[in-house]
Amino acid sequence: MHSTDVTVAGLGAMGAALAQALVDAGHSVTVWNRTPGRIPALTSREVPDIDRAVAASPLTITCLTTYDATLTALEPAAGAFTGRTLITLNSGTPAGAREMAAWAAEHGADFLDGAVKNVPDAVGEPGTLLYYSGEKAVFDRHVELLRALGGDTVFLGTDVDLAALYESAVGGTLLPALLGFFQGAALVTARGLPAASLVPYTVKWLEMIGAVLPSLAEHIDTGDYSRPASSLGLFYEGIAHDHELARESGVDFSWNAPMHDLLTRAVEQGHREDSIAVLTELLR
Amino acid sequence: MHSTDVTVAGLGAMGAALAQALVDAGHSVTVWNRTPGRIPALTSREVPDIDRAVAASPLTITCLTTYDATLTALEPAAGAFTGRTLITLNSGTPAGAREMAAWAAEHGADFLDGAVKNVPDAVGEPGTLLYYSGEKAVFDRHVELLRALGGDTVFLGTDVDLAALYESAVGGTLLPALLGFFQGAALVTARGLPAASLVPYTVKWLEMIGAVLPSLAEHIDTGDYSRPASSLGLFYEGIAHDHELARESGVDFSWNAPMHDLLTRAVEQGHREDSIAVLTELLR
Ligand SMILES: NC(=O)c1ccc[n+]([C@@H]2O[C@H](COP(=O)([O-])OP(=O)(O)OC[C@H]3O[C@@H](n4cnc5c(N)ncnc54)[C@H](OP(=O)(O)O)[C@@H]3O)[C@@H](O)[C@H]2O)c1
Ligand SMILES: NC(=O)c1ccc[n+]([C@@H]2O[C@H](COP(=O)([O-])OP(=O)(O)OC[C@H]3O[C@@H](n4cnc5c(N)ncnc54)[C@H](OP(=O)(O)O)[C@@H]3O)[C@@H](O)[C@H]2O)c1
Repeated sequence: MHSTDVTVAGLGAMGAALAQALVDAGHSVTVWNRTPGRIPALTSREVPDIDRAVAASPLTITCLTTYDATLTALEPAAGAFTGRTLITLNSGTPAGAREMAAWAAEHGADFLDGAVKNVPDAVGEPGTLLYYSGEKAVFDRHVELLRALGGDTVFLGTDVDLAALYESAVGGTLLPALLGFFQGAALVTARGLPAASLVPYTVKWLEMIGAVLPSLAEHIDTGDYSRPASSLGLFYEGIAHDHELARESGVDFSWNAPMHDLLTRAVEQGHREDSIAVLTELLR
Repeated sequence: MHSTDVTVAGLGAMGAALAQALVDAGHSVTVWNRTPGRIPALTSREVPDIDRAVAASPLTITCLTTYDATLTALEPAAGAFTGRTLITLNSGTPAGAREMAAWAAEHGADFLDGAVKNVPDAVGEPGTLLYYSGEKAVFDRHVELLRALGGDTVFLGTDVDLAALYESAVGGTLLPALLGFFQGAALVTARGLPAASLVPYTVKWLEMIGAVLPSLAEHIDTGDYSRPASSLGLFYEGIAHDHELARESGVDFSWNAPMHDLLTRAVEQGHREDSIAVLTELLR
């Protein structure tokens, strides 16, 4: 007998936000965390044992750091999963997702893997994106409840590792984009200007980058790099600019070195007049 | 005696777009390019000599590749600049902008430096950002005309190299963000899925990145990295994820290595629980 609609295991920054969004949406929620009592607002819903937590609901959503951590944490509850559903929402590799799916199948659980493409503060908002992969029928059964986590709830496909694949493919932009911003912040703050003064321009710049992605994706998908809006050569000429700027400002630009190497190799291979998207071929 | 409102020197991808936007806005325009006849739609307005081109208008806007190229191209017209205005719109370093300003002053020209923060196709649109620095009175005199190049026309300040500084500080996000996307494209296309399928998610991801910049800028400006929405540790744990993903997919992740090194150094320095924005301190 189930006592609640859903169990959330893992009450870190993201898991706590997920649990709270489900509570706010009016669901009855059981929570579990390795370290108990971490989130005062949720303590009354907490059970100390993972097997009892899983047994409390037809659906368990986990949000631990990794698939390995999830496997470790769920192992004592393996027997409780028969006939229930598991949805994992951590980051990880496609292989990790497949391993997780195999574990779920072995214990008779329906399974979806998913990813939250936003920060904890955005969980529950209408525009927040989460995507899922696995059995379509399982997604359909739970989509109503899942929409409470973010209004932009997407089913990517039945290959169970698609969410992890897209999570990895999309997420790879984050650290480099942030470092670009931090480098800019180091430049303006060295002049006594606040990093905040850079924000509106960078936000607009990120919008501009988003706007050119469709044509870059088309170059990649057609393999035709010959009609670029921005040629690789323009970026290649930027290398000298980066060197001068590093010298002038004293800011450390050395993390750009492998990117410069990629541009140089591409020019050596005759791609100077091609679309910058041709770098995809060098990464393959 | 002036025969036109404005002269545009440099008819590359960007210069041609600038000249066309001025024509479209109803201005009389003279154009010059080192290689003549490049843009058929503008040929009737072209003059072959740079000094006659500069003499034709009270204002000359240049858009060559670099400040050095601009100095070389304008040298024969140095005498024609007395009492006229020069606005340079190429990319370059703050030192380059100061050198350009000194050249203009030497030849009795009013001067602004500026930057177009978008692609040629976006020139002339109401949302397109261009910013300028130099004498405020010169900006005020020409702002009406400059708005034809992009509706979001901003005066950054009287330090003449501010536009080049912000251009460099903002622009540093482009190549790393694009490489992040290309790496993602390599991952999904290796699975037979189109790069285009990644675009809507990455666009949303870039919006999310834009949305977290104000709080990251605040961490940098206050020097208080202790209340992170995303801790450096989360990124540090992502290193193993990148290694697994590279192994699994065969995609070349090696351009991430210096970013991983920065994360590792930051953890060694005790910043694991701090805001990811603390990386700014390591770049300084
Ligand atoms: N935070 C974000 O901005 C964000 C955004 C998108 C996606 N994500 C993803 O969401 C997942 C969770 O992130 P988070 O920010 O919530 O991390 P977090 O705040 O560090 O929390 C980690 C959670 O995992 C638990 N955990 C770790 N190892 C465990 C183990 N071996 N056994 C049991 N529990 C274990 C922790 O339990 P204890 O409390 O006992 O330590 C805690 O509940 C990650 O995969 C992350 O990439 C996060
Ligand atoms: N394209 C973009 O997406 C974009 C976006 C923002 C900013 N920008 C900036 O705008 C500037 C121009 O870019 P672009 O895309 O227009 O470049 P481009 O298409 O390569 O055109 C370069 C222009 O510079 C001229 N030139 C170069 N060296 C010269 C020299 N020594 N003497 C005389 N003319 C010379 C070329 O003349 P010839 O025709 O005779 O070769 C051509 O008119 C750059 O600083 C760039 O960073 C470009």
